[in-house]
Amino acid sequence: MAGSSFGRLLRLTTFGESHGSGLGGVVDGCPAGLALSEADMQAELELRKPGHGPTATRRKESDRVRLLSGVFAGVTTGTPIAFYIVNEDRRSHDYGDLAGVFRPGHADWSYFQKYNGIRDYRGGGRASGRETAARVAGGVIAKKILCRRGVTISAACVELGGIAVPPEDVDIARAGARPYFAASDAAPALWDTRVAEARKNGDTLGGIVLITVQNVPAGLGEPVFDKLEAVLAHAVMSVGAVKGVEFGAGFAAARSTGSRNNDPLLPGGMFASNHAGGILGGISSGQDIVLRAAVKPIASIAQKQRTVDREGRAAEILVGGRHDLAAIPRVIPVLCAMTALALADALLLQTRMEPGR
Amino acid sequence: MAGSSFGRLLRLTTFGESHGSGLGGVVDGCPAGLALSEADMQAELELRKPGHGPTATRRKESDRVRLLSGVFAGVTTGTPIAFYIVNEDRRSHDYGDLAGVFRPGHADWSYFQKYNGIRDYRGGGRASGRETAARVAGGVIAKKILCRRGVTISAACVELGGIAVPPEDVDIARAGARPYFAASDAAPALWDTRVAEARKNGDTLGGIVLITVQNVPAGLGEPVFDKLEAVLAHAVMSVGAVKGVEFGAGFAAARSTGSRNNDPLLPGGMFASNHAGGILGGISSGQDIVLRAAVKPIASIAQKQRTVDREGRAAEILVGGRHDLAAIPRVIPVLCAMTALALADALLLQTRMEPGR
Amino acid sequence: MAGSSFGRLLRLTTFGESHGSGLGGVVDGCPAGLALSEADMQAELELRKPGHGPTATRRKESDRVRLLSGVFAGVTTGTPIAFYIVNEDRRSHDYGDLAGVFRPGHADWSYFQKYNGIRDYRGGGRASGRETAARVAGGVIAKKILCRRGVTISAACVELGGIAVPPEDVDIARAGARPYFAASDAAPALWDTRVAEARKNGDTLGGIVLITVQNVPAGLGEPVFDKLEAVLAHAVMSVGAVKGVEFGAGFAAARSTGSRNNDPLLPGGMFASNHAGGILGGISSGQDIVLRAAVKPIASIAQKQRTVDREGRAAEILVGGRHDLAAIPRVIPVLCAMTALALADALLLQTRMEPGR
Amino acid sequence: MAGSSFGRLLRLTTFGESHGSGLGGVVDGCPAGLALSEADMQAELELRKPGHGPTATRRKESDRVRLLSGVFAGVTTGTPIAFYIVNEDRRSHDYGDLAGVFRPGHADWSYFQKYNGIRDYRGGGRASGRETAARVAGGVIAKKILCRRGVTISAACVELGGIAVPPEDVDIARAGARPYFAASDAAPALWDTRVAEARKNGDTLGGIVLITVQNVPAGLGEPVFDKLEAVLAHAVMSVGAVKGVEFGAGFAAARSTGSRNNDPLLPGGMFASNHAGGILGGISSGQDIVLRAAVKPIASIAQKQRTVDREGRAAEILVGGRHDLAAIPRVIPVLCAMTALALADALLLQTRMEPGR
Repeated sequence: MAGSSFGRLLRLTTFGESHGSGLGGVVDGCPAGLALSEADMQAELELRKPGHGPTATRRKESDRVRLLSGVFAGVTTGTPIAFYIVNEDRRSHDYGDLAGVFRPGHADWSYFQKYNGIRDYRGGGRASGRETAARVAGGVIAKKILCRRGVTISAACVELGGIAVPPEDVDIARAGARPYFAASDAAPALWDTRVAEARKNGDTLGGIVLITVQNVPAGLGEPVFDKLEAVLAHAVMSVGAVKGVEFGAGFAAARSTGSRNNDPLLPGGMFASNHAGGILGGISSGQDIVLRAAVKPIASIAQKQRTVDREGRAAEILVGGRHDLAAIPRVIPVLCAMTALALADALLLQTRMEPGR
Repeated sequence: MAGSSFGRLLRLTTFGESHGSGLGGVVDGCPAGLALSEADMQAELELRKPGHGPTATRRKESDRVRLLSGVFAGVTTGTPIAFYIVNEDRRSHDYGDLAGVFRPGHADWSYFQKYNGIRDYRGGGRASGRETAARVAGGVIAKKILCRRGVTISAACVELGGIAVPPEDVDIARAGARPYFAASDAAPALWDTRVAEARKNGDTLGGIVLITVQNVPAGLGEPVFDKLEAVLAHAVMSVGAVKGVEFGAGFAAARSTGSRNNDPLLPGGMFASNHAGGILGGISSGQDIVLRAAVKPIASIAQKQRTVDREGRAAEILVGGRHDLAAIPRVIPVLCAMTALALADALLLQTRMEPGR
Repeated sequence: MAGSSFGRLLRLTTFGESHGSGLGGVVDGCPAGLALSEADMQAELELRKPGHGPTATRRKESDRVRLLSGVFAGVTTGTPIAFYIVNEDRRSHDYGDLAGVFRPGHADWSYFQKYNGIRDYRGGGRASGRETAARVAGGVIAKKILCRRGVTISAACVELGGIAVPPEDVDIARAGARPYFAASDAAPALWDTRVAEARKNGDTLGGIVLITVQNVPAGLGEPVFDKLEAVLAHAVMSVGAVKGVEFGAGFAAARSTGSRNNDPLLPGGMFASNHAGGILGGISSGQDIVLRAAVKPIASIAQKQRTVDREGRAAEILVGGRHDLAAIPRVIPVLCAMTALALADALLLQTRMEPGR
Repeated sequence: MAGSSFGRLLRLTTFGESHGSGLGGVVDGCPAGLALSEADMQAELELRKPGHGPTATRRKESDRVRLLSGVFAGVTTGTPIAFYIVNEDRRSHDYGDLAGVFRPGHADWSYFQKYNGIRDYRGGGRASGRETAARVAGGVIAKKILCRRGVTISAACVELGGIAVPPEDVDIARAGARPYFAASDAAPALWDTRVAEARKNGDTLGGIVLITVQNVPAGLGEPVFDKLEAVLAHAVMSVGAVKGVEFGAGFAAARSTGSRNNDPLLPGGMFASNHAGGILGGISSGQDIVLRAAVKPIASIAQKQRTVDREGRAAEILVGGRHDLAAIPRVIPVLCAMTALALADALLLQTRMEPGR
């Protein structure tokens, strides 16, 4: 109930704060017999690591993950898989002056209210983006479960700092090889200019991430409250920087008409279009799942901001520490991990529903 | 797990199909001592009733609700509150020819896949919008719990058929008194024209709904997976017609910068702006919660459409039955009910967290 | 969380009070394709009905069950199955004088404390044994799921009013055909005498119920907190009259030694003995599951008892109404239903665990 | 769902195997503001440590616990509390020959069946009693929550190897100071003889543990499926060695009559007796909670036993390694921890139910 767990049959529980001794997670419900190693997790964590990409801080985190349980002789045993990442480069003193004042755009104020004044104020504590490292590690397990059924997840940045990739240029397949996980070859150069400008101003940027899932079996998702969109939206909106999510045509569907928006069915389990984003009535249709997430600008800017202190008096704050200029691209592996966790869970849940079992 | 329940401490379970004997729900976890009557529920159900508003079908549903348990001497007893609505005007024969063919834009195909060919094809069965009547009835209980703490929910249609209410004209307070729950006095006339045109074409429309919540105590929502946005997104996206959701500045935040998007804190627990939509780090800040939901056009259009039959052969379909032209305004009480259920649950959950208890 | 639901994948939610308009339940998570009718449920309900057996009250309840959803064309559709039983023979006036005083051995006092003085005092309200009718109806669905895999449940009374059936006489297969669900042919005559004596004294009796489950696949149950014994104990102890439960050798195992208590394994997946009651390390071994439940004497006796009133003053009470003299045999179908619900849930849960899926 | 978590609002998730790198747990839902240190946990772990008491093995485990998260400046922050215990004295080679053969009375066979042949066979792996160290550490947090409300838990061994402490001699208050956690001063000497005899025979013993809880507020527990007895039975039966549980008069209640078993209420919220064990209708009455757990003899005996190997062929086994002669007294802190976890969870759940909140 307290919110540190995600999933029904495949359940990830995370723990740890940005400036505590470390952070980690436990995945319960993984079937026995999956090959899994620390190296598998490490590879994904590298993509989320600080110091990665043109919007990155210089902060170094080695993010070395250790498997603590649930794997024997190289394969999962069906018991909980725990993993742990030590916090190495913690400069808590950068944050000491944040104990008494609330950073705008951060969770400082709302946590202070929720926990009656008790909070680990160092670098956001539990609310830090650093917590998402545990999601990425857990997502590796989910991806392996999906992979056995041929399901794959792709992602790309389709907009940064207000500069969008034209829909006709979107080529998600090669995004991983481009700076910013960009959806087109042309985008990074445009975004570089925008990023340089923001950096000069001590400002930060937001953007939009596109995620698609290929090879999804039809039938995933549960009526009526756990529609696949509802569960995926829950997953994606649980990432701190995300302020909006849409499926298929999404907000554009609101401006369309039924005759244009409906996807005609074709023989062979295909559809003539995919405005639904692969989900009909909350259940996967077998088409690709398509979703977009709106990522807000990083709240830690290098400008003086108005705020209040613990006593409620007006104050000014200049947030120190080392921060990214945009959550993109580092948030992309996190969004993929959450998508994978939600889908692998839906897949395991559907498995037991099959009639005749 | 099978998706017919929503909520953690306050949990609504619904049941029933559009053309079965009836539909209903059970709310477990309601505190003892709330005044509750069938009339309370009936009043909300009237707002969702067919034949209501300019986009409505002529279908009549009396939607008379009966309380079956959990209330004694006019107040809740703390035990589960069950309620039931008989399906009266069921013309199943309108749907008899849908047994063998899949309606585009509906759940027909995906349910067929999920349940291995077994489904109640009459009018959508469990996937029908009619199921949402039980959500509205359950939402009445949630609203009463919120009301004790002074929390109120408002909603309005801010866009229909591609015609948006200009932001500066939005006046949500009086929306309930206008056709379409319109956000401005000027909008209904513009929308009437658009609706008449669509009706002539046998087509349907979508739109955007704005929901705001006033007087929310700070501290609601749970880090990290059950952030208030995640839980609200889950709630709102579980409504069939919704294909996108955003909080505060939402997708526009992706185009903003940190210096503009951050909301400066002011003395007295106030903020200079509310781009965050009342939620910081997933926890309510005490500002109004602001969210928008994208509602797709109704899938049942009065035009011939391409599809396939059970055997996978190409087919044509002209959907009969009596259908609304837009989910708006009838979906609005449903969205309010889901918002209320998510918030009342978060409120009860936060109650026990208070230190010193 | 509020306790009216049982199960993880197969989840029964019940509602209703003994003297409200009726009671019922919702089963969510039943796979599609099971044949199910009202007659199936009615047959089981007859076994639990009042006026049944030598310990029964004369009270009449027709207990006619209606299916409200989830079944189409005679088979389950995978959507929630709701059912409802109208309360017909409610003589609430029998209970009017119970509003101000607490019956010893009943939930009156503890509910009064829990709900701050608010309660439906008529005949126990939600705490009445009548609530278990909904469990029996829900258990029918669980039994059908088990039945597809060949799993069957048997039960018998092995002790009543202190008179036990000698272990060597226990013949559970034919118990259903004997008065009291007796475990032997000889027992009913002995128990008749004991019952007559108790009736003369205005007193009530308890007893012990034996349940065995045949044909259980090995592998059910989850380490570590949801061991099969833990889940079955939860199920069985949730029946009001039960005050103890033991598996296999149970309390006698505490007096045994490892060399005698261990069950040697034999070729062919068999064991030389079954002191473990079919569960090893919390996981079914493939042996019969064997459990015993201690049933306390009915609290409603026909004698004056000491108690207190709402104001805390000493009082005397003579409980009116029409009551059974023992929960046995009527509690037996309820215990079987709870056993079935727990096992069917464990079976569905295990299904998705199978490697290779 | 996969069974490694316990609790609703206060939830403990454990991980780790007896011969892996270590074991640990995560407690989510602990309120902010509790003083908590590694020393608090270490003190409880000492009571469960091997090499403790007259029935102990000589195996040494230092069981040094480390707090990984959730505590800042000496108090809990409301975020998940993770802890970890490194496995130090692992002699896996003692178990190497167990890969191909199943130990009677252990989980070897049932895990092999459940996970399709995949298992960590070293010393029981996940099914080892060593897993309970994480429960004891988690229980410390539960006890602190209970302690704030004045609730305390006591436990004693009331029977070992078939030699029971006479009821009139039971003095639970000083049990912690006696060998075996014995319930009387006289018992240890009698049990020493019985233990010596068993040790000589290479055999093991079982016993019965009594647990009482003082100062329990009335109103804990939820009708109908989550009665306090049901939840406590779930908690206690989830401990590997436990094969039976009873509350208050328990199995003896089955032999009593209503007139003797009912507890008359007295002015001042007191009762004339406590046959109910402090729970009426599944809800705490304010009396002491009283339960007894039957603990089976340790399965690892120093005698040759009949069994089968992986290929199903008859085999003999002599279990090596270093094992206790009885689970008592080491299981007692584990049973107390599970009782504490169940009660603290029920307490937090009741808090939010209170009318007027």
